[in-house]
Amino acid sequence: MVTSRSAATARPRTVVPRRRGAVLERAILDATLEQLSTVGWNGLTMEGVAAGAQTGKAAVYRRWPSKEDLVADALAAGLPPLDDAPDLGGIREDLYELTRLVRNAMYSRPGWALRAVLHECDNSASERFQALIMSGVIEPSVNLFGDVVHRGISRGDVRPDATGSLIFDVIPAVLMYRSKVRGSEWPDEEIADLIDQVMLPMLRSRSG
Amino acid sequence: MVTSRSAATARPRTVVPRRRGAVLERAILDATLEQLSTVGWNGLTMEGVAAGAQTGKAAVYRRWPSKEDLVADALAAGLPPLDDAPDLGGIREDLYELTRLVRNAMYSRPGWALRAVLHECDNSASERFQALIMSGVIEPSVNLFGDVVHRGISRGDVRPDATGSLIFDVIPAVLMYRSKVRGSEWPDEEIADLIDQVMLPMLRSRSG
Repeated sequence: MVTSRSAATARPRTVVPRRRGAVLERAILDATLEQLSTVGWNGLTMEGVAAGAQTGKAAVYRRWPSKEDLVADALAAGLPPLDDAPDLGGIREDLYELTRLVRNAMYSRPGWALRAVLHECDNSASERFQALIMSGVIEPSVNLFGDVVHRGISRGDVRPDATGSLIFDVIPAVLMYRSKVRGSEWPDEEIADLIDQVMLPMLRSRSG
Repeated sequence: MVTSRSAATARPRTVVPRRRGAVLERAILDATLEQLSTVGWNGLTMEGVAAGAQTGKAAVYRRWPSKEDLVADALAAGLPPLDDAPDLGGIREDLYELTRLVRNAMYSRPGWALRAVLHECDNSASERFQALIMSGVIEPSVNLFGDVVHRGISRGDVRPDATGSLIFDVIPAVLMYRSKVRGSEWPDEEIADLIDQVMLPMLRSRSG
């Protein structure tokens, strides 16, 4: 029986320097996102990813036992981080800037790929990718909106009782809803309207 | 070749009076919802629906050429109507009551069945059922929220500039988001919190 190794050694591997550890992993994850954007979830194969990363299939399988594991890691690693709340001196500016960061994460290449995967994959995989949206975008966003609002309360431009959990869900909810239901991709002007029509009236202090 | 008619005539059909037109259609649509709730989208067959409605398969196919057409009509006909905005004399009461009506539609038997179908069906059918959520629940809800807010403006308990389209999306967006992301089934107390924490601060007039 011919092993895949004999086929691999036939390739001109000398042009790619031998990479290990984090460097090789990064190349495999990048190739995974590239494959997702060209052939989609259904077309993606471990072989195709290995070829794209100019490595062998075994190097991929050694780290990720299944396509689902590989794609989940590639998407999680690729999403822009949502670690720090903007601190620009006013609630309007902070909310506007933070909403832009969240919009940018939603419409980053991994963000698009994640929605496409959810559309294509079967129900057992979809729970895992839904959980990734939760841990990679929604939870960090809600936490940062909480930070921004609490800072506004301390500063005095947000009413002191604006601390209910529903308040911190409004922006993520409207972002998701209008993306899904109205097909919006949230240009900056629409973000400004959301802050001015909805968030500032809801949050402003009576004196503000 | 044995036709299905010969099998049908073997059944004790005399116990079911011959129904026509709207009565028979109603029985078929009811049987469809019943089948959805017991065997789901994948298990549902035209034969099973016909048996449930105590009629022949031909009576079903004559009206609905495919399972998708039949299920779409059954869901559309079964959803509670969202025709009239409550008019209880105040913005708080109107919003609370209207949100309860929308929640009741979401969690009606056809509402549950619609979400289950979306989870099970393939992508080509899912666009049609997404459109049904849009035309059967979301659009009528947004229109009624618009009616309630405009009446509040006339009455003076809503600020006169609360007319931006984003405002009318907040309740549908938060209902959808917390149902999907937080698994909420929206008990009445959570609806009251949504009105009190989010909607009234956002809408109230400066003098109100």
